[in-house]
Amino acid sequence: MDVKDLYQKIDKLINKEVTLTGWIRNHRKQKEFGFIDFSDGTCFKHVQLVYHNDLTNFEEITKLKIGSSIEVVGTVIKSEGSGQDYEVNVQSIKLLGDCPDDYPIQPKRHTREFLRDEAYLRPRTNLFQAVFRVRSVAAMAIHTYFQEKGYIYFHAPLITASDCEGAGQMFQVTTLDLKRIAKSGEVDYSKDFFGKTAGLTVSGQLEAETFAMAYKKTYTFGPTFRAENSNTKTHASEFWMIEPEIAFCDLEADMDIMEDMLKYIVQYVLDKCPDEMSFFDSFVEKGLLDKLHKLLTSKFTRISHHDVIKILKEAKVKWEFTPEYGEDIAKEHEKYITEYFNGPVFIKDWPKDIKAFYMKQNSDGETVAAVDLEVPGAGELMGGSQREEDYDKLVHRMEELGMEKNGLDWYLNLRRFGGCVHSGFGMGFERLLIYLTGVENIRDVIPYPRTPGNCDY
Amino acid sequence: MDVKDLYQKIDKLINKEVTLTGWIRNHRKQKEFGFIDFSDGTCFKHVQLVYHNDLTNFEEITKLKIGSSIEVVGTVIKSEGSGQDYEVNVQSIKLLGDCPDDYPIQPKRHTREFLRDEAYLRPRTNLFQAVFRVRSVAAMAIHTYFQEKGYIYFHAPLITASDCEGAGQMFQVTTLDLKRIAKSGEVDYSKDFFGKTAGLTVSGQLEAETFAMAYKKTYTFGPTFRAENSNTKTHASEFWMIEPEIAFCDLEADMDIMEDMLKYIVQYVLDKCPDEMSFFDSFVEKGLLDKLHKLLTSKFTRISHHDVIKILKEAKVKWEFTPEYGEDIAKEHEKYITEYFNGPVFIKDWPKDIKAFYMKQNSDGETVAAVDLEVPGAGELMGGSQREEDYDKLVHRMEELGMEKNGLDWYLNLRRFGGCVHSGFGMGFERLLIYLTGVENIRDVIPYPRTPGNCDY
Repeated sequence: MDVKDLYQKIDKLINKEVTLTGWIRNHRKQKEFGFIDFSDGTCFKHVQLVYHNDLTNFEEITKLKIGSSIEVVGTVIKSEGSGQDYEVNVQSIKLLGDCPDDYPIQPKRHTREFLRDEAYLRPRTNLFQAVFRVRSVAAMAIHTYFQEKGYIYFHAPLITASDCEGAGQMFQVTTLDLKRIAKSGEVDYSKDFFGKTAGLTVSGQLEAETFAMAYKKTYTFGPTFRAENSNTKTHASEFWMIEPEIAFCDLEADMDIMEDMLKYIVQYVLDKCPDEMSFFDSFVEKGLLDKLHKLLTSKFTRISHHDVIKILKEAKVKWEFTPEYGEDIAKEHEKYITEYFNGPVFIKDWPKDIKAFYMKQNSDGETVAAVDLEVPGAGELMGGSQREEDYDKLVHRMEELGMEKNGLDWYLNLRRFGGCVHSGFGMGFERLLIYLTGVENIRDVIPYPRTPGNCDY
Repeated sequence: MDVKDLYQKIDKLINKEVTLTGWIRNHRKQKEFGFIDFSDGTCFKHVQLVYHNDLTNFEEITKLKIGSSIEVVGTVIKSEGSGQDYEVNVQSIKLLGDCPDDYPIQPKRHTREFLRDEAYLRPRTNLFQAVFRVRSVAAMAIHTYFQEKGYIYFHAPLITASDCEGAGQMFQVTTLDLKRIAKSGEVDYSKDFFGKTAGLTVSGQLEAETFAMAYKKTYTFGPTFRAENSNTKTHASEFWMIEPEIAFCDLEADMDIMEDMLKYIVQYVLDKCPDEMSFFDSFVEKGLLDKLHKLLTSKFTRISHHDVIKILKEAKVKWEFTPEYGEDIAKEHEKYITEYFNGPVFIKDWPKDIKAFYMKQNSDGETVAAVDLEVPGAGELMGGSQREEDYDKLVHRMEELGMEKNGLDWYLNLRRFGGCVHSGFGMGFERLLIYLTGVENIRDVIPYPRTPGNCDY
């Protein structure tokens, strides 16, 4: 029986015998009895095992070490101790897998840095047990949201010959022998696996648009890559993105979906992971639950980039970066503006020169129908836009930017073959998790993070 | 309104006005009226639009071209024509996006080869519309199955420094400048992004085991890569895999899960995609529905590799490849054995020399606790094994095979730190889709397939 099932059916199991398999998280023994803090990883809650010296192998049991895997047979009883309502009175314990004293995960506070070095063991700690369960549940929330609404899940290609937006440096993918290249002094890409240079995708959006024009509603949920040499708390070289694309949908309707989706995910995770979320609220980010509950009832403000800059300029704040029309906004501005509106803010209609080529050109000739969602406590959480559906305008913009049209014929053709108003957005999955858990470093929400110089496991 | 919703609420919509946006799939016009075959991609069924010459822009409407996107306002009525029960009597049609005569997707039979060249348009055809919806729904079936049973969804790293099983050649991932290498005559991996050689994963299993030892039950569902230079119907360089890992689970229980999961997915897809599945049954693989329904009620046979070879040797068949104890079996053998047992067959206890290093060594010293699932009409659909939980045996096997232990310390340590009997399996998602749809070529179940020399989009 899983511990999760045990707690779900606890009322019916009182005084019943159960068999559990799992791991010893802590062990306190006295002369006549002992307590084992037991977990099997199926839920955040542990089980207290109580054993007495009337067991024939009492001595053996007292020697069981932290980290060991065991099989327990015992009776569920109401606990008289504090800290738990129920416990299991042990009839027998069988050691399945021993654990030596040099086991790194001891029942004490480990720093997150230490645990990053022992990444393969950290899901056994309370913090990471909670983080990666929330990661799993949030992923399911996303799939459920879109599938219930009839979106088609689209697997964008990971290896690609096209660089979506030059949004970051791409990793190159090759089967060429680099040592042979060094020796021969020649690079012949026609001999590479795909017969040309290829790299890892930075976004599946362009390809997702082809599905939107066939299914009306589609979403990606897959890995994307950036070979950016930044060692910050928010950058990873490999991360997961959600990129919905919707045909017959303008920027306003796009924002409706972004808001609706986010609230759905938050509610879903709160419902499914109450213990984990309380833990984060108590030990990781005080006020996390308040923040999330407030989001659920917030009306998201919609305001243009121009008006945001105006507010920032009028604010009686000494900025580190002076806010400017026509320019991007800084973290401090994001923070100010969500506090100003006391809730999430959609900033829309951005200066075209700081946004991607495919965004819908507004009639003012200066801005594009792009939107960023800023949320209190986390800053930018998603970015989206209406896509330029006008063939000529799109080509013109690509030419202005000196972009290569070859290889993007198919993308342009979407505008020729029954094109329509359409929009989409992207959300970094890890950014969402940082927001949901309060854990600040992206390395702590990815099981095996990849960063410059870092590719263990 | 989506066409999907229209059909779901059709009874309540009779004689009501609806507004639809979507695309013209076909158009037949006569002097006094016309029919438009209309689809918005939200369901497999199309809608017939009927318009008459009492519309002010009748002439314009007759000129609408196949592939164009339109907005229609009309009244839902019962159809008197054959081929559909309902149709929409048009009040107005607005052209949203025109489509020229050179639009490649015309209402006629296109070969799959032709459509592969126009991969970005093929989801607009009936066949691929159905294939990629089933792909999306099957993915959801998998997530739902595991999440409802409390499995943790694990995102395995894609870029990795470890080669799981040498199961195929790995793609190399690099940020080194190949031209500079050619010029300098030197490769310095310490200057590469990760400070060492890195590649694209061929399996997330080893990492998934770390999660099984923390959460008891976990599954991956993500892309994997093989730089194998094979141009066959079943090989792609980039494909999606499902890899569950379960602690406290032996090979027999592993097979229980494999069988239960497969039946769940098949039932889920049959329930959610009846129109698509009928289409495949009629036009792609005659008898597909019978095959799948039969699977649902089949008892899966469990038999050892040894006994399978015995049956094959005794069979009065002229084999192309002679079946041998200690060797792998060929496609013709797979086919024979599922026909012999008239249903799915788990072949277990394989010769250790043809299986991976991490598989549980059986006490006979000759075989490992590995299993392949063979299904009628598709051959091998999944492969799994109990994992070797004995540290010494595992190390010994790695030494026998001349494997590098450095870099796999963490994997070995799972056996030292509370190890236990555990098992898992892998299923290629595209192999499942080929089985579910009857579409034979892996290039036709992946939106943008990657194969040697092929990396478009």
